[in-house]
Amino acid sequence: MDKKQLEKYAQLLVRSGGNVQKGQLVIVSCAVDDACFGRMVQEAAYDAGACEVRMDWLDDQCSRTTYLRGADEIFDSFPQWRVDKLKEQDDRGAVYLHVRSSDPDVLAGVDADRLRRSTKSSREATKEHTRLTMGSFRRWSIIATPSPAWAKKVFPDLSEENAMEKMWQYLLKGARADGENPIADWETHKKSFDERVNFLNKKSFDALRITTKLGTDITIGLAKNHVWEGGGDTDKDGIPFFPNMPTEEIFTMPDRMRADGRVVASMPLSYQGNLIDGFEMTFKDGKVESFRADANESALANIIEIDEGGGRLGEVAIVSNSSPIGKMNTLFYNTLFDENASSHLALGKAYPKNLKGGDELSTEEFIAAGGNDSLVHVDFMFGTPDMNIFGIDENGNETHFYQSGEFVFN
Amino acid sequence: MDKKQLEKYAQLLVRSGGNVQKGQLVIVSCAVDDACFGRMVQEAAYDAGACEVRMDWLDDQCSRTTYLRGADEIFDSFPQWRVDKLKEQDDRGAVYLHVRSSDPDVLAGVDADRLRRSTKSSREATKEHTRLTMGSFRRWSIIATPSPAWAKKVFPDLSEENAMEKMWQYLLKGARADGENPIADWETHKKSFDERVNFLNKKSFDALRITTKLGTDITIGLAKNHVWEGGGDTDKDGIPFFPNMPTEEIFTMPDRMRADGRVVASMPLSYQGNLIDGFEMTFKDGKVESFRADANESALANIIEIDEGGGRLGEVAIVSNSSPIGKMNTLFYNTLFDENASSHLALGKAYPKNLKGGDELSTEEFIAAGGNDSLVHVDFMFGTPDMNIFGIDENGNETHFYQSGEFVFN
Repeated sequence: MDKKQLEKYAQLLVRSGGNVQKGQLVIVSCAVDDACFGRMVQEAAYDAGACEVRMDWLDDQCSRTTYLRGADEIFDSFPQWRVDKLKEQDDRGAVYLHVRSSDPDVLAGVDADRLRRSTKSSREATKEHTRLTMGSFRRWSIIATPSPAWAKKVFPDLSEENAMEKMWQYLLKGARADGENPIADWETHKKSFDERVNFLNKKSFDALRITTKLGTDITIGLAKNHVWEGGGDTDKDGIPFFPNMPTEEIFTMPDRMRADGRVVASMPLSYQGNLIDGFEMTFKDGKVESFRADANESALANIIEIDEGGGRLGEVAIVSNSSPIGKMNTLFYNTLFDENASSHLALGKAYPKNLKGGDELSTEEFIAAGGNDSLVHVDFMFGTPDMNIFGIDENGNETHFYQSGEFVFN
Repeated sequence: MDKKQLEKYAQLLVRSGGNVQKGQLVIVSCAVDDACFGRMVQEAAYDAGACEVRMDWLDDQCSRTTYLRGADEIFDSFPQWRVDKLKEQDDRGAVYLHVRSSDPDVLAGVDADRLRRSTKSSREATKEHTRLTMGSFRRWSIIATPSPAWAKKVFPDLSEENAMEKMWQYLLKGARADGENPIADWETHKKSFDERVNFLNKKSFDALRITTKLGTDITIGLAKNHVWEGGGDTDKDGIPFFPNMPTEEIFTMPDRMRADGRVVASMPLSYQGNLIDGFEMTFKDGKVESFRADANESALANIIEIDEGGGRLGEVAIVSNSSPIGKMNTLFYNTLFDENASSHLALGKAYPKNLKGGDELSTEEFIAAGGNDSLVHVDFMFGTPDMNIFGIDENGNETHFYQSGEFVFN
């Protein structure tokens, strides 16, 4: 991939993604194999006036080795200094830039119980940091870069070199970062969200009924005072940022106690290296009552059973089928891309920002208001080109605002 | 370089270097560009029975960028969580494996005052960890791997690819890791040190007089109860390890108050990216009285003036000219290699292990016994093929035990 275009991609992450401000501390997490791109991000962050840019280097392969070969007890603890590190950074108002380049299969064959315990201990220890980032008290942004393993997974028929080149093209196109001026393109993109979000927030439906030919037929209650979001976020100081690049979704908060019916996934879910495939769930009173999967059902069970909120909904998101990623018709084995190809739901924790005044509520108050709480937040796709969505108001009247995969409220 | 031989090199670091024990926590620090070799070290450490192998990834280029572009105030502080991280690891009895692959010029042009302040704040914060590692309470080991920039610096006339290949050959040969069974070769190597160390410890000279044709003529008092070390180390539990691979030196502790005469360096000193060249110092009563350098004199001043101990000697080390590295007759711009090519001195902190019972002394007691204390410990070479060393006993009698670059006491 052309170096100039990559520098634009790095600048997009820094400027539109994290919106780095003068004098700000910046944390860049990046795979060691992607050091060249990570260095571009660091330079771009200094260009934006960062006071300090720290690199958190990651290596999925070393993580895998430790999952496979480490002593069993190490997965139940999370060192306090790691918590303190996040606190020091958060106290200094850090912005977090994540460059993700994962091999979808890197955790395949790893003991699911180790993964579950490791996730649980790290999530519990870093709850405060999660509250700050999910509540938009701190800005953050994620973009993707290809790895050879990932590229070969998505394009198994190409040579590694060609697969990498094609991945770069797809990732940049999918992230609307393939043009002359990606930052300007994202300004335009941002505006296109407003119409949809405004329509849905004005309607403030009591529930959504969603159907697909795959067999989904579910009525999802929306929390009273829910807020539709999309097209980026704004932090507590009013500074806009894009947590995810790409982002094509608009999303809100289900009522954790109201979801009834059947959901059939339209794409496999790659979760901690396991591809959960051919799966569906049946909800009653907001909770998963039964579920099944053709492949890796136990990984699905790990999500649903991690805690009380793991089997309830934390997000409902609608994506137009005509998004750049939707049009690629490609399974990326990667939530960041796959979730922007298709409408989806999330099991687990809801975003406080999807509720009016949600940020000021205690966890108990948030739950009482219908918000779901959990150690996990896992998106899975259920959108199809034939999907229909009906908004239902408090009197039971239906508005058919999304038809055959597209918004039709105009 | 042949992958099998690299795996042997990784095993050598783990087994002979750090001597990783069953159930031990292992910390591997490694450059991101060297991820392949870092992963081999991780695997080898698990092979040795490590309970957990954590990777600390480094990137010199990103460090350089921060030195050049970071806000000025960030160089005066060192986050507490970094101190706590070392403490957690030390409390768990960690062994530290360092894979060093530095570009000698990476810090060239960086503001010397920023470097000095950064070194000072990190050294002050990590004093306890330094005490544990320098006092052999915790095991650690350093080996080197080539980087393209380093290889091109040492072999400027070769292509990058050929320079890298030649560097691998030189580094493996220099580290006695180019044979069929490097671990066995190191056992043999270890034994060859015993004769020299035993001779010098039995003699327990009061002082050394050292001369070279370059102009060195200095008498260095040795601390009463000094101990000559060499050929590896033994931790507090009696477990042997090699802190440096290669190691060819035997070394002991000067009396911080007794060094008189002139020292002329025989090789440039690469310090924090600056090549201090053509330098000499004159000592009086143990302290540098005057100094000069043809190049980067200010970097030399930064060492000498960092604190009271920066201008006094912490180590005197003798190397035979016929060591594998000595025979290469190559400037590596790297202390680990260059110090094993030639006899050298260190400015700054002395090793407590070079004094009988030194580990049990407080800093004040250590200083009173003649040991030097400082935030720095910087080796510089002054050995030449014509070097002569005379041991002087308490009555002033001289023993000429090292002649024209070789030990001659047999």
